[in-house]
Amino acid sequence: MRIALFGYGNVGRAVARLLESRRMHLERIGLYPKLVAVADSRGVAVNPRGLDYWKLEEVKLSKGSVGFYPDYGRIGVEAIEIISDRLIDSDVLIEVTPTNIVDGEPGLTHIREALKSGLHVVTANKGPLALAMPSLLELARHSGRELMFSGTVGGGTPFIRFAEKCLAGDRILGLEGVLNGTCNYILSAMEGGLSFKQALEEAQRLGYTEADPSMDVDGWDTACKIVILAVHILGIRVTLRDVAVKGIREVTEECVLEACRRGATIKLLGSIDSEKRIASVSPVEIPRNSPLAVPGNLNALMFHVEDLGDVTVIGRGAGGVETANAILKDLVELKQRLQSKGI
Amino acid sequence: MRIALFGYGNVGRAVARLLESRRMHLERIGLYPKLVAVADSRGVAVNPRGLDYWKLEEVKLSKGSVGFYPDYGRIGVEAIEIISDRLIDSDVLIEVTPTNIVDGEPGLTHIREALKSGLHVVTANKGPLALAMPSLLELARHSGRELMFSGTVGGGTPFIRFAEKCLAGDRILGLEGVLNGTCNYILSAMEGGLSFKQALEEAQRLGYTEADPSMDVDGWDTACKIVILAVHILGIRVTLRDVAVKGIREVTEECVLEACRRGATIKLLGSIDSEKRIASVSPVEIPRNSPLAVPGNLNALMFHVEDLGDVTVIGRGAGGVETANAILKDLVELKQRLQSKGI
Repeated sequence: MRIALFGYGNVGRAVARLLESRRMHLERIGLYPKLVAVADSRGVAVNPRGLDYWKLEEVKLSKGSVGFYPDYGRIGVEAIEIISDRLIDSDVLIEVTPTNIVDGEPGLTHIREALKSGLHVVTANKGPLALAMPSLLELARHSGRELMFSGTVGGGTPFIRFAEKCLAGDRILGLEGVLNGTCNYILSAMEGGLSFKQALEEAQRLGYTEADPSMDVDGWDTACKIVILAVHILGIRVTLRDVAVKGIREVTEECVLEACRRGATIKLLGSIDSEKRIASVSPVEIPRNSPLAVPGNLNALMFHVEDLGDVTVIGRGAGGVETANAILKDLVELKQRLQSKGI
Repeated sequence: MRIALFGYGNVGRAVARLLESRRMHLERIGLYPKLVAVADSRGVAVNPRGLDYWKLEEVKLSKGSVGFYPDYGRIGVEAIEIISDRLIDSDVLIEVTPTNIVDGEPGLTHIREALKSGLHVVTANKGPLALAMPSLLELARHSGRELMFSGTVGGGTPFIRFAEKCLAGDRILGLEGVLNGTCNYILSAMEGGLSFKQALEEAQRLGYTEADPSMDVDGWDTACKIVILAVHILGIRVTLRDVAVKGIREVTEECVLEACRRGATIKLLGSIDSEKRIASVSPVEIPRNSPLAVPGNLNALMFHVEDLGDVTVIGRGAGGVETANAILKDLVELKQRLQSKGI
């Protein structure tokens, strides 16, 4: 399986590392991954005989870009040229460039062009899916290629796979989730007496959030995940524009402590009502003994299922390693799907 | 798919009802179930052209046994004779007679003879699995037949399927679970100030436990589930005899309230340590914000997973309808497995 990897930040590097460290395990199940192209924002490295993980790490750490890869690196070349100029033949694109919810770029073009060029796509990039998921799935179907994205929601915690595999055939009436670890960390810290500002600073100090925390605290990260779940799990055609989004900036210390006194807790919940076809993100007060009342930076997703009642999955949210793990599982499943089609 | 159904209590009747009400849905996915034999403790009904659900219900409710089924019922005939005397040709045995953890009977003999006679088996009966799971799986493999049991743990909540499908390829270091809804209900009620005895009486009044509550409150039901998880999910060859079991009879009101004051809660936990290969059941004090601290009669199962951390699934425990739902899903998966083998 010849792999092109676009994005060489936290997640991209963790993917390359896992492909290296799990090589023997993957080969045992018939998956022979070969990293033939890697791109970051400054350059690319391309070698049909495969790129060496340790060399990639070395040039990334010492010079700041994979474009400095000896002999096979090129600075100033954009990732998309690998596909559009057919710099190399590959089977799968792993797309893990940063999420951009304004226009989805560069990920959106990467995914579109890859599918059109006959590549399967595995991505953890929420932007393109949040903005254009129905049309991307349509394009994948039309191209006869797979588009996989289990790392977009919950990182390593298999929320999406749970719905696909364990609730197949069940009627899901709706779902609600705590899907952003940073917000959950901040709200939990506020229960300990910190103000929103203090809690946010602590989250930033711990590396839980970006310099610009807007994606997290204004609810956009949660909204992206809600769109992906709505389209993929519930079959509701929505994009980010259809979600009513409210973040946690206006949640005061007093609100939080008042909820505590009532035996409740405030969580940023993303939710979808299948009947009414409504998706929203908002801080909500829930009882402290609800399965959704998870502490710290945990994530939780509750499905309302006909006949079964509420079923909840809880686990760590996104992180480089966890997300890379989800991407690897998608690769394994891709391999199995291709095998079952006799490819 | 010609089905023999052994056991016509809560679960058995719910299975028959679901087969009837979901008929169109099942046929759409290529599954044509035909109930050709039904047995309860007093008699059998056998008809190669299929038994009618409404007639079964009528004779069960009015006369107490399916053996009174008009024309095709026989009182005093034992279920096993359907298989051993080949009263009828069938493809699958659904075994839902009551759990017996002393010798596993009559379920154990039913399952063994069915596998030997070339039937696939779907069961929700924990006794035979808790006492002889490794040898039953061996027999199924040797016979080239499927033995499915996802309804034994968690009823409709897909604990087993989650581990099979969503953690495939992951290294599970151990697991811990709140697996008995009755115990959890009693311990929760004790936090409200009731004594063990009062809480047990309330559980009995609500129909959450049998007249003899020993299976639940002495930890044996949890222990059976732990054996099934240990063998199936973690590949540890244990039977009920290998599990150190302690129930909740000795948990006092004072213990429970003292734990509450410490911000903790007492739960009956079943747990398995994969490394040490130890399985046990015991009341344990856990922090109130642990995902395992579920209220009321909910069940929860936490997997400790390498690289992913703790992943928890929460949902309703066993109930007739929920368990029947799990059995139906096993039937659907059985159908799919047979199709993929070209049968």
